[in-house]
Amino acid sequence: MKASVLFSGGKDSSLSAILLEPFFEVELITFSFSLLPVEQFVSNLADELRFPYRILNLDISILDKALEMAVEDGYPKNAINYIHYNAVKTLASTKSHSKDVIADGTRRNDRVPVLADSQIQSLEDRYGIYYVTPLRGYGRGAVNALVRQHLDIEQGISDNIIKADYETELREKIRKAYGDEKISQIFPSHIQSHIKKRIK
Amino acid sequence: MKASVLFSGGKDSSLSAILLEPFFEVELITFSFSLLPVEQFVSNLADELRFPYRILNLDISILDKALEMAVEDGYPKNAINYIHYNAVKTLASTKSHSKDVIADGTRRNDRVPVLADSQIQSLEDRYGIYYVTPLRGYGRGAVNALVRQHLDIEQGISDNIIKADYETELREKIRKAYGDEKISQIFPSHIQSHIKKRIK
Repeated sequence: MKASVLFSGGKDSSLSAILLEPFFEVELITFSFSLLPVEQFVSNLADELRFPYRILNLDISILDKALEMAVEDGYPKNAINYIHYNAVKTLASTKSHSKDVIADGTRRNDRVPVLADSQIQSLEDRYGIYYVTPLRGYGRGAVNALVRQHLDIEQGISDNIIKADYETELREKIRKAYGDEKISQIFPSHIQSHIKKRIK
Repeated sequence: MKASVLFSGGKDSSLSAILLEPFFEVELITFSFSLLPVEQFVSNLADELRFPYRILNLDISILDKALEMAVEDGYPKNAINYIHYNAVKTLASTKSHSKDVIADGTRRNDRVPVLADSQIQSLEDRYGIYYVTPLRGYGRGAVNALVRQHLDIEQGISDNIIKADYETELREKIRKAYGDEKISQIFPSHIQSHIKKRIK
């Protein structure tokens, strides 16, 4: 059975792919609005992780709508969830085979991005896919312990780490429309991890 | 890292052990109140699944309290959750090493037995263990697809299937105290699966 793992380049989506590897034919899927060049970053990291990958485009109207949401809310949670839901839906609707798995890196206590139970049920019923979150039953401590066994990572604040996630492109879009100050109002600085190597 | 998987002999706990196998040193743990002989059943099935196992006793006062709850409620949900929480707590408090994993077979839409977020946090903080539910991010369809790949099972109604779960002993306890009629009032008949073979 195939499993397409939504891949941001972070440790949670990378570890999710590793947990699925013994049981599924795993492919990494990165969605991009083509605002930033992610090809080289994703390509290098996918090679390091030893998974095939594809970069798919998301309709720019989704990012426009997310920008509106983030500016109106003053925080990015709903905007990022909106992009994520549309990414899963886009992938589900373009699957060539039903009964394949679409997975992402959601952990036990994650709030963003996370799909609601009703969204999951609707996607599974409508498109005949299985939505799977391998880390959903793992808390932060267990995830970190597994990451230490499988990945060599370094950490930094979110501004300085290259990523291929929705937040990076949403920040870029807001920067272009409203300038740097708006970014720091909407997005809290948080620690991000950068994967250097797959250990095993 | 070790992972102790609470094992009822059903497909969910068996599949959970299989999903953890590539990443942890897995041991199956069956809790029993010694009301019914589970040793032979667990021993045969653990051999078939190729995992080491241990049978541990739970204090009979826990079953007494659960019987009270089930009779008062008229349904078994709270009683079974109460036993399950005490089983995880008992195992967590007797772990020789902290930072080990305690796992069970909870699926995405399970309601019984399932620990509340606050119970999980409390167990992890107090005993220094990681509580992990490998199937928590899998819905029914994905679980069934994985079961078909890994296990040869047959299904039957719950009365006729040998199990090593809390429900079986709770039923036996209620049967002894109140007779057969009370059982059918409290417990709905439901389809249970019996594992015949591990396929891969």
